[in-house]
Amino acid sequence: MSEVRAKGLAAKQASYALVNVTTAEKNQALKLIADELKASQQEILSANEKDLQFGKENGISPAILDRIMLNEDRIQAMAQAIELLINLKDPIGETIEEIEKENGLHIYKKRVPVGVIGMIYEARPNVTIDAATLALKTGNAVVLRGSSSAKHSNTAIVKVIHTALKKSRLPHESVQLLEDTSRETAKELFRLNEYLDVLIPRGGKQLIETVMRESTVPVIETGAGNCHVFIDESAEWEMAKDVALNAKIQRPSVCNTIETLLIHEKWFEKYGKELVQEFQDKNVEIYGDEMIRKKCHNILVATEEDWATEYLGLTISMKIVSTVQEAIQHINHYGTQHSESIITRNDQHAAQFLNSVDAAAVYHNASTRFTDGFEFGYGAEIGISTQKLHARGPMGLEALTSSKFFIYGSGQIRN
Amino acid sequence: MSEVRAKGLAAKQASYALVNVTTAEKNQALKLIADELKASQQEILSANEKDLQFGKENGISPAILDRIMLNEDRIQAMAQAIELLINLKDPIGETIEEIEKENGLHIYKKRVPVGVIGMIYEARPNVTIDAATLALKTGNAVVLRGSSSAKHSNTAIVKVIHTALKKSRLPHESVQLLEDTSRETAKELFRLNEYLDVLIPRGGKQLIETVMRESTVPVIETGAGNCHVFIDESAEWEMAKDVALNAKIQRPSVCNTIETLLIHEKWFEKYGKELVQEFQDKNVEIYGDEMIRKKCHNILVATEEDWATEYLGLTISMKIVSTVQEAIQHINHYGTQHSESIITRNDQHAAQFLNSVDAAAVYHNASTRFTDGFEFGYGAEIGISTQKLHARGPMGLEALTSSKFFIYGSGQIRN
Repeated sequence: MSEVRAKGLAAKQASYALVNVTTAEKNQALKLIADELKASQQEILSANEKDLQFGKENGISPAILDRIMLNEDRIQAMAQAIELLINLKDPIGETIEEIEKENGLHIYKKRVPVGVIGMIYEARPNVTIDAATLALKTGNAVVLRGSSSAKHSNTAIVKVIHTALKKSRLPHESVQLLEDTSRETAKELFRLNEYLDVLIPRGGKQLIETVMRESTVPVIETGAGNCHVFIDESAEWEMAKDVALNAKIQRPSVCNTIETLLIHEKWFEKYGKELVQEFQDKNVEIYGDEMIRKKCHNILVATEEDWATEYLGLTISMKIVSTVQEAIQHINHYGTQHSESIITRNDQHAAQFLNSVDAAAVYHNASTRFTDGFEFGYGAEIGISTQKLHARGPMGLEALTSSKFFIYGSGQIRN
Repeated sequence: MSEVRAKGLAAKQASYALVNVTTAEKNQALKLIADELKASQQEILSANEKDLQFGKENGISPAILDRIMLNEDRIQAMAQAIELLINLKDPIGETIEEIEKENGLHIYKKRVPVGVIGMIYEARPNVTIDAATLALKTGNAVVLRGSSSAKHSNTAIVKVIHTALKKSRLPHESVQLLEDTSRETAKELFRLNEYLDVLIPRGGKQLIETVMRESTVPVIETGAGNCHVFIDESAEWEMAKDVALNAKIQRPSVCNTIETLLIHEKWFEKYGKELVQEFQDKNVEIYGDEMIRKKCHNILVATEEDWATEYLGLTISMKIVSTVQEAIQHINHYGTQHSESIITRNDQHAAQFLNSVDAAAVYHNASTRFTDGFEFGYGAEIGISTQKLHARGPMGLEALTSSKFFIYGSGQIRN
């Protein structure tokens, strides 16, 4: 049996035990992991050193090396995140629906674990601890497939998890790490429907697209964010400027940052030059359509490609539109159904935009940067789903649960 | 542009209009469809006659011809189902979650249509009307791909739908039927992620497996049901016998019917012979393990394959087990996560079984035949999901919805 199948099977078997553990037992296991993590700091750091050394020797970029890098602060932060997770409400067991039938059947729809979660991710070793602990909190087993560049770190972290789980009431087989990080194991994982209930990719656009294209295991799609702010004719100058700048520059590298600013032509006539200047003062590179280039200096030519590009940096494209409808159509055509905002004093335009724009989160008069599990108060975030089934938008613990009908009778048969 | 892409695009564009229609407008459209269906009975029946003629000439089996066949009663039943659907509560617009943030942001998670639903199905032309009307009730556009054996019937039914929709406030492009029913169009549909939000197969095991294996569009898996009743040591004779018989013979061809009966050895010692006789009196063919064959007459040899077979007829396999745990393990190994029942007077055993068996619906002292959207009181049924994401078990209208965060601010930016 291949490593992938053997570990998939072990995780599946562990998942059958996990449906019978209590919240207290799960939290105790999480506490043991947090403690063990702090106690094993040196082992983790020296494993991480090997990954960094290997990365440097093999020309891995400084940006990626920074993602791989662990230090005392980062390990402390992992342990703290677990302690916050312990305090979150356990969604498992919750009754979602209750139906009493005339024939005396009592039907309860309850929240249960999904079963086995496959997680495929890139550089960051903190995803290892994050994925494992979120899965355990929700009673799921997990098969982890990290990248070869963080192999030593991931192995050291999973060793810590296993040591802790062996002291707990949870089977240590609940957390499985694939040692072979070749493309072949990834492909095997994509087709492991027998043992995996869901596959969650965490990483760049290319990883997510590969998983979406090749996986027959159900996938939760996360991540890509080609977001927009639309400044309508009636938008207040201060609010429009503040929101547009915040949505672009507060943290340019993340998915809920905007990539294109759509501006109503009448608003642009009044405030366009000033707004462009604000962006340029903040060193934002601007690609614009013809009208913007006519009115302002130092604007690059926006091509068809720009409207579809997630710059993830201090670059923005700008486009003039004549109506709310035109803004909606542009977003529905080029957007990635993530986060979209309209700045307007016209409530009817706002309603039209919010209803008609097809995205996980739609805003009236606020920055798109709020699309975030912690900002929404979920206390944890599995990722931000840009698909429409199962979960959409910021995913808290509930996204890692399924449901099950428990039906109690006294011998009822169907006529 | 291919037919599949062109119709996918048209459905996508219609779906953007459908988010803005009211419940009253949707119900009016449904009423028009029901009326038009009754008025066009003759056209539909003569189209159906062509399919039946073609089927007979091409050696299609009587069982399948019966599924293709329409008559006045069946058309009346379709129209009546639409009238019931009109009276169901519209789930769209419902607020699922409401969050008020300290910074003044108001976040509403609301139920919205999924967008475009792809439906791929076999013989029965009533699925055409069923899928289209359930989709419209929930504000979704639909791309239908029926089988060539019901081509004329499906075309006539969609013509009726289009005539009705043209008199309504809903775009008639909301319902698209693929004329080309070749394997190539199915394959194109499996990869139409750009326009389809979900693909639902309705039909036999082979169809569902093909869709699961080949589709990159998210799929809702429905249908396969290798279900079990487990008669525990303490089960009452009458109840156990009645439930086991009902679960097998009340309607043998459907998915919530059982295929294997698991019996505790001690119960079998007392009542086994009598139970087997009851099944044999009802002309049920029995495959059994060694112990059953030793005690009873006319029992065929159950092989490994039998435990995994969905007979869908008057055939059952029977196996003796020594513990609840053994029953649970058998079901988790061979079952299809559909419906599973334990008959016992021991509440602890019942709890263990219900928690540990991995299935959409688990029963204590009742027949598995109740797993059904209408029995659960949903008033409509899209199918019975045997997957764990998005929807599990009988799916009502909610299964055709997604959610969206509507966020209202007054210029909030993130720090």
